[in-house]
Amino acid sequence: MEVAETIQSVRRQVTTAREKGKRIGFVPTMGALHIGHISLIESAVNQTDFVVVSIFVNPTQFGPGEDFQKYPRPLDQDLEICRKTGVRLVFVPTPEQMYGSENLTWATVEKLTEPLCGQFRPGHFRGVTTVCAKLFNIVQPDVAFFGQKDAQQAIAIKRMVADLNMPLQIVVCPTVREPDGLAVSSRNKYLTKQQRKDATLIYKSLQKCREMIEAGVTNTKEIIGQMRKILNQIPSAKLEYVSIVDSETLESTDKVCGKILAAVAVKIGSTRLIDNILLDTGKQ
Amino acid sequence: MEVAETIQSVRRQVTTAREKGKRIGFVPTMGALHIGHISLIESAVNQTDFVVVSIFVNPTQFGPGEDFQKYPRPLDQDLEICRKTGVRLVFVPTPEQMYGSENLTWATVEKLTEPLCGQFRPGHFRGVTTVCAKLFNIVQPDVAFFGQKDAQQAIAIKRMVADLNMPLQIVVCPTVREPDGLAVSSRNKYLTKQQRKDATLIYKSLQKCREMIEAGVTNTKEIIGQMRKILNQIPSAKLEYVSIVDSETLESTDKVCGKILAAVAVKIGSTRLIDNILLDTGKQ
Repeated sequence: MEVAETIQSVRRQVTTAREKGKRIGFVPTMGALHIGHISLIESAVNQTDFVVVSIFVNPTQFGPGEDFQKYPRPLDQDLEICRKTGVRLVFVPTPEQMYGSENLTWATVEKLTEPLCGQFRPGHFRGVTTVCAKLFNIVQPDVAFFGQKDAQQAIAIKRMVADLNMPLQIVVCPTVREPDGLAVSSRNKYLTKQQRKDATLIYKSLQKCREMIEAGVTNTKEIIGQMRKILNQIPSAKLEYVSIVDSETLESTDKVCGKILAAVAVKIGSTRLIDNILLDTGKQ
Repeated sequence: MEVAETIQSVRRQVTTAREKGKRIGFVPTMGALHIGHISLIESAVNQTDFVVVSIFVNPTQFGPGEDFQKYPRPLDQDLEICRKTGVRLVFVPTPEQMYGSENLTWATVEKLTEPLCGQFRPGHFRGVTTVCAKLFNIVQPDVAFFGQKDAQQAIAIKRMVADLNMPLQIVVCPTVREPDGLAVSSRNKYLTKQQRKDATLIYKSLQKCREMIEAGVTNTKEIIGQMRKILNQIPSAKLEYVSIVDSETLESTDKVCGKILAAVAVKIGSTRLIDNILLDTGKQ
């Protein structure tokens, strides 16, 4: 496995791999790799011939007061995980390498980035889509892999790739969960023991949503009410949103129909957690 | 020479050329090809092995009330010019092919797109950079060629390519002029005989700027005053801007120094014309 710190080095190594006829897979990450990332890497290893992972805590997707400084950066451990999972090249750029002295160009996706997390993290998705545009242009992968846990991110990136005709395919992999249902996240390690326990109620609220829809409930308000009831049992929780939206347009509806995304964002103490499930209601 | 109407067809043909080891040159145009475009194509033919020209009157770079509908579209003549100049592939997409039912994604360059034309054509550069991002992703050229006449466009595109790490080189070719100095433009054909004659004062004003700087004048206001005097001789002219700015940052300065861009935009009747010159003052 090679570790590249510069754009030139990544390009050289990917070009060599491509010239050998290898299909390039790419998993962009902010490091602090966990079993969620490992499942993305495993998909990439299965579906492509030469897997590149980037580890970059991207400053432009953090807002003021968010956890950019505090975000975990266990690089040696991350590299060990990459080595063991069959990654061929890890790109570990500095912020200077990625953004130079001043970045003036942004790739932005309208509409899809406005509801849900977009309401609470202004500028976040602009930072995400821009850094992905940059990384896609640097690595030039055939396929890039993202997790369903960051549902809105995956939707925005798929849309950017389609709208800007970027020559790659986006694969979205299922959310990986702890045995008790909590979605795996690098931010889970911020939680105290009690908060960690309370956090299981997030997935419980999503399961409640699934059960109600399967039982024939179609009134969105009613379902969200029940979900909120569960989430409000977390003592230190501040709910950001509990939403049921169309899974493609992310528009909310009064009546559940078609393919929907049920999504939750909640702050437990100062730790912001998100989770979601996709449901096909089968209704038109 | 091949003519492609779909993205798939362009990609297939460019891939074949690249597999044969050809270096891909690209000249994006809105058609109505003139000797300015021909000089770009000639540069591309000289510097690369397989030249692609796109002809697409891009709706997203026209504002309301601008000349999108009226813009000339002499396709047969354009194809004949491409054939004669050694172009290998012409991409002639429909708006539907380029933008689908709804475009949500924009590539935007801040700051550099705000002064000069940016003040008078809100949204114009966003349309330009976005369509270029799309075309670059479709054609995937090694080099793309732009004209110095659209100086701010060239600067914004160069910046986008650098900031987003797009894997291509941008070459900016000198402005081509009529024998009397008027910069060649597809919009010159909108001019009446008298307006066409008056339009030569645009380049005369730029030559005045050069002369004054060469004579040691450094006061920007004084130079712009003299340029305006010349342009105000055009009876039907409405001056949009007469500016002297840093050629890289496009910021205006009170005192001429370093490399500067002198740029003019003027409406003669309803026809909007722009022109500029680059000058190295040699001063720090």
